[in-house]
Amino acid sequence: MTNNFDFSPKVNPKLFDAIAKERETIGFYDLCDQDVTPFLDFANSIKQNNIVVIGIGGSALGASAVYHFLDLVRSFDKKLHILDTTDPLILESKLKSFDMHNAFYCVISKSGATIETVAVAKYIDAVERLQNDNCVVITDEGSVLEKFADTRDIRHFAIPDNVGGRFSVLSSAGLLPLALIGVDITLLLEGAKKVRDDFFNKDGFCDTLMKKATFYAQNANTYNINCLFSYSEVFREFNAWYVQLWGESLGKKQRHSELHVGLTPVGLIGPTDQHSFLQLIVEGKRDKSVTVIKIKEFNNTMRIPNSTFENLEMMDLINGYDFSELINMQADSIMQALDSLDNIPLDVIEIENVNAEGIGQLILYYELLTALVANMLDINAYDQPGVEMGKIILKEKLRGK
Amino acid sequence: MTNNFDFSPKVNPKLFDAIAKERETIGFYDLCDQDVTPFLDFANSIKQNNIVVIGIGGSALGASAVYHFLDLVRSFDKKLHILDTTDPLILESKLKSFDMHNAFYCVISKSGATIETVAVAKYIDAVERLQNDNCVVITDEGSVLEKFADTRDIRHFAIPDNVGGRFSVLSSAGLLPLALIGVDITLLLEGAKKVRDDFFNKDGFCDTLMKKATFYAQNANTYNINCLFSYSEVFREFNAWYVQLWGESLGKKQRHSELHVGLTPVGLIGPTDQHSFLQLIVEGKRDKSVTVIKIKEFNNTMRIPNSTFENLEMMDLINGYDFSELINMQADSIMQALDSLDNIPLDVIEIENVNAEGIGQLILYYELLTALVANMLDINAYDQPGVEMGKIILKEKLRGK
Repeated sequence: MTNNFDFSPKVNPKLFDAIAKERETIGFYDLCDQDVTPFLDFANSIKQNNIVVIGIGGSALGASAVYHFLDLVRSFDKKLHILDTTDPLILESKLKSFDMHNAFYCVISKSGATIETVAVAKYIDAVERLQNDNCVVITDEGSVLEKFADTRDIRHFAIPDNVGGRFSVLSSAGLLPLALIGVDITLLLEGAKKVRDDFFNKDGFCDTLMKKATFYAQNANTYNINCLFSYSEVFREFNAWYVQLWGESLGKKQRHSELHVGLTPVGLIGPTDQHSFLQLIVEGKRDKSVTVIKIKEFNNTMRIPNSTFENLEMMDLINGYDFSELINMQADSIMQALDSLDNIPLDVIEIENVNAEGIGQLILYYELLTALVANMLDINAYDQPGVEMGKIILKEKLRGK
Repeated sequence: MTNNFDFSPKVNPKLFDAIAKERETIGFYDLCDQDVTPFLDFANSIKQNNIVVIGIGGSALGASAVYHFLDLVRSFDKKLHILDTTDPLILESKLKSFDMHNAFYCVISKSGATIETVAVAKYIDAVERLQNDNCVVITDEGSVLEKFADTRDIRHFAIPDNVGGRFSVLSSAGLLPLALIGVDITLLLEGAKKVRDDFFNKDGFCDTLMKKATFYAQNANTYNINCLFSYSEVFREFNAWYVQLWGESLGKKQRHSELHVGLTPVGLIGPTDQHSFLQLIVEGKRDKSVTVIKIKEFNNTMRIPNSTFENLEMMDLINGYDFSELINMQADSIMQALDSLDNIPLDVIEIENVNAEGIGQLILYYELLTALVANMLDINAYDQPGVEMGKIILKEKLRGK
């Protein structure tokens, strides 16, 4: 994985020290060192072919990002299904899409009392009783959900206390469902570890990340929108994970000023969104930075044939190119176009291959970047006080029936 | 369909006159009056079960929005597949997901020379020759693609000259693939016509749309991000259609000042994104307006059982609710929470049912709103000059091989 850009703000070396200090208490930094044997052993004991995550937000997005990144290049024997809503239309459709008797349910909730998760779990429990041969629970140690699991002898795994939901993809919350499908979670962690170690050893990514974070934080009022323009459909769910990580971590009141700050994440897929959002980037208000993500080696041989469509001879210029060449040339062309314009900060991340290591690197890269920007903006990246009010009002409404 | 909000800016009555004048030359306003018999007759003659759209941007998003809105409640006999990328990984996966011999291909490109579309068409043509029994072409009259179609005796339908790609869902570009699947396109147009006539008759939606557009335009520098928080998965592709319509139409240089302006669309799905983007809305920078879209009648009976999970008795408050009630209570709770905060402009759109009329109304509502805001911002909603540079650079690169 590489990351290149032109901007070079003056970085305060204390930023590194602040992150090193944060690492003493915040858990996501060291998840890549954990022993994954318990997850692998457990996964080996599970026979069902449908792995169903009942969870929402941070309890679903991480596993979904990794699974969908890998699924298009390496068809897994087992399928991941994610039930992360209360919308009956999609729930009904998804429940019809797999055999509920040949399914293993992962009930994931950090607090243990997430309304959407418990609602769906109760629905499924009425059809197919959740018990120790078809269910696992992943939650905070000592939560009410863990206590429920104990009453049914359902195995449970803990999410470390100091790992927040949106930073939990490399904890049990992400690793266990991924292991159940057959994802190489060891390689996933190795990818993450490379970036983590590189940063803390003050190697290449340290300089890159510190500069990029400094630039984003210093220009937060000018460039309040950060577009991630990912050139492959494999990134679609990763984009959704990024939107949560970035939006929920960085949309806060500042610790000391109480001022509302926040950087708005936008996830785009190239080349499709060249025909949608790109016009706004090029000609719209100069309030956006753009990060292009590319895949170096698609390992795919689909090629545009050397054929001519009569009267469309002008299009023969695409003949003989691999589609993977074409999509990367499209990315390069858009970057060249954007680079020629003023006031559109641009950088490019290139992933070597579509494999677990690549996505592991990308995950830790973005977690570090988020932590760095939060530090500079004087906000707590790890809470989400803004979502509580809606939950309280909902409970009042529910009790009002 | 209803739309409610509190803000009431002073509206300039000349805005209505400007739109009435625009209607004389811009085509989307009157698409709902067209005779759909040719589409229905053609659809009746097609036997294949897989309808494959080869098109990108405005040539794909409209049909996709309508199809996916309806598909979860009314399973169609025929399936829609959309090939709107050059990414070989997803192309290969999609081509494996249906029988290419039992497929009917709609090649859609307004200009007729869209690189992505021609690349995919050439690939398919090499496997399964495109000819008049498995292919239709939808393009501008006289385009090179139309001329190609003539050489193979492939039937073609025209997109009206004065209808731009992102406003073309109710033209042949959207209606024909939708008719091929079995969508009630007459009802779709009836829905659109209701909103259109209501506006031009100066009934309810006229006042609503003029006020909302005025508010958005007057506050474009403060609230430069417009979030569409749609409470059902059926809106996912509609959100994508909205992002293109809003972003590509409103991200422009002003006609007279040459200043860069633009409103940034963000599509969210509730309740899922309550666990993602919501924190940023509530506590982040006050640069966002929010529109909640709700469905009044889900016509779905999925219910949370009256069961108790031991140690989770606290969650029994959700027991006995229909999921459709719960999701709407979640939407109402979030609206109540947002409404209590300062400087988050909020409005709610409610669709009566998940049917073709409902989505037709919503489509015309957003097209009108876009036209109105563009008018107030002194920009041309109907061009996209910003995307040309990337295309020119790409062609240079392709020729350089």
